[in-house]
Amino acid sequence: MRYIAVDIGGTQLRAALYPETGIEAITLKAIPTVGDQPSIERLMDLIASVWPDEDKVETIALGVAGAVNPATGVIYRAPNIRNWDLMPIVDVIQSRFNTRTLLGNDANLAALGEYKYGAGVGHHDLVYLTVSTGIGGGVIINDRLLLGARGLAAEVGHFTVWPGGPLCGCGHRGHLESISSGTGIAHYVSAQIVEGKPCALASLGLPINARTVAEAAREGDALCVEAFNRAGEFLGRGIADLLHLFDPTIVILGGGVIKSGSLIMDPVKKSLQESVMSQEYLQGFTLTTAQLGDRVGIVGALALARS
Amino acid sequence: MRYIAVDIGGTQLRAALYPETGIEAITLKAIPTVGDQPSIERLMDLIASVWPDEDKVETIALGVAGAVNPATGVIYRAPNIRNWDLMPIVDVIQSRFNTRTLLGNDANLAALGEYKYGAGVGHHDLVYLTVSTGIGGGVIINDRLLLGARGLAAEVGHFTVWPGGPLCGCGHRGHLESISSGTGIAHYVSAQIVEGKPCALASLGLPINARTVAEAAREGDALCVEAFNRAGEFLGRGIADLLHLFDPTIVILGGGVIKSGSLIMDPVKKSLQESVMSQEYLQGFTLTTAQLGDRVGIVGALALARS
Repeated sequence: MRYIAVDIGGTQLRAALYPETGIEAITLKAIPTVGDQPSIERLMDLIASVWPDEDKVETIALGVAGAVNPATGVIYRAPNIRNWDLMPIVDVIQSRFNTRTLLGNDANLAALGEYKYGAGVGHHDLVYLTVSTGIGGGVIINDRLLLGARGLAAEVGHFTVWPGGPLCGCGHRGHLESISSGTGIAHYVSAQIVEGKPCALASLGLPINARTVAEAAREGDALCVEAFNRAGEFLGRGIADLLHLFDPTIVILGGGVIKSGSLIMDPVKKSLQESVMSQEYLQGFTLTTAQLGDRVGIVGALALARS
Repeated sequence: MRYIAVDIGGTQLRAALYPETGIEAITLKAIPTVGDQPSIERLMDLIASVWPDEDKVETIALGVAGAVNPATGVIYRAPNIRNWDLMPIVDVIQSRFNTRTLLGNDANLAALGEYKYGAGVGHHDLVYLTVSTGIGGGVIINDRLLLGARGLAAEVGHFTVWPGGPLCGCGHRGHLESISSGTGIAHYVSAQIVEGKPCALASLGLPINARTVAEAAREGDALCVEAFNRAGEFLGRGIADLLHLFDPTIVILGGGVIKSGSLIMDPVKKSLQESVMSQEYLQGFTLTTAQLGDRVGIVGALALARS
């Protein structure tokens, strides 16, 4: 019995063939999402290229960077792939390969991957946040992935933490993502520089993004340290809010911003501790970082395939 | 087969005997929570007083105003009942009556009641908020009550909607409850009067609470209208946030503040419409008011008993 996991991103399409157990792929191939042929044809060729010669494929699972409906198998919106809005991708793949096909949002599946094969093993109630350009995530409740009625639940970066605050990637203001994501951190530093605050990034002429802000913060730049403290304070308070709503035993943080280590994690921990409504939420509770790294997309799809 | 539902509030203890189906009680009795005897003895006498002469009682279900752990049957905190913190109430009741006993938080059970017998019938994914002195609620996901790992989930009034905002009943600042509850509305009007804003409630010398604010707003008092607009704006945005997290097909609003009708509901609807991240969340979605009224506590416990 074999499983095919597919990670559909705006930049790369990746497909891997997996055995019955474990997370080591038998075959893994990656191609650019955009090429001469339409992306859907490139995707089908990619899946065919990892298809096993002899073994039966039990399930194909697709993780997509975008809004999807797992129940209907339709992609609502894939912001980075042309002509994929309202694509009935499960029907398309299923009829071509005549194999059970499942669909999920990439951040939801990352949560499922960490739950099944990563930092969340052994937990039944889990919240995963990926803090990167944006903030996405997923929630496991009672050993089940929270999908919501239309597959649109667990948008853990999109609740309002500051009315009228910074513009968010989604077009609204003051969502957690608008402040604590890498984009939010970089915007804050840029805006403060414009207002005349001294900053190494201005004088050195480096590009301003979460990575350069982290480097400058490590060199002691006060504004860049403050930018991480601010992001961490909001993120910690946001995590407290998620504790009050979901009461998990573990929160797992992944994504590029979390790689900044104690720069972000120290203010997160402090703010979480101060913001949680009662100490019971922290009993037997773990705040930790993701384990699957860059594999989380494909391993998340694998977790769905085996579900 | 009979069921006993018990509603344990800070003011009243209510117990009712129910038949196999329907929500009309065979017997219903209520006594003050506090009296000469300890509350736990009063509670046991009350349950005994509705016990049927002949029929078997299948389950006793207890709804408690406080933080509870349904899995262990222990009350973490019952703020309005003396000496009930860490009370193992399920063990106590079960050993006295030798009958299966279940425990839930009153707001969670109200959600379950509305789901099973009220405004939520037919829905699988539901959020219920009671907007009263405080804001509590419950969440149904995939036909199951969201409890969380320790029974502390679904504190839908306790996420931060305004950093450093008004003091909340829980001791933290800027939670939804601190602004959109009856207490939040009354505090706002009081504070504005202190700052010199004209208001009928100041000149008439009426007490300032959500009800008098509503009355003055209906008479056209600008500050009181503004107080409801502000509460509704935050509440609508909070509901949008809950849509992004839970993706339900229905949100049910109950509690005293919601009885103010269009005063609160008009700004809620406007703000929800403006704040929702994408229109898919509103497809096939209903925002409505609770149906069970004052019975919601006991009917919620009944829903648990029959679960």
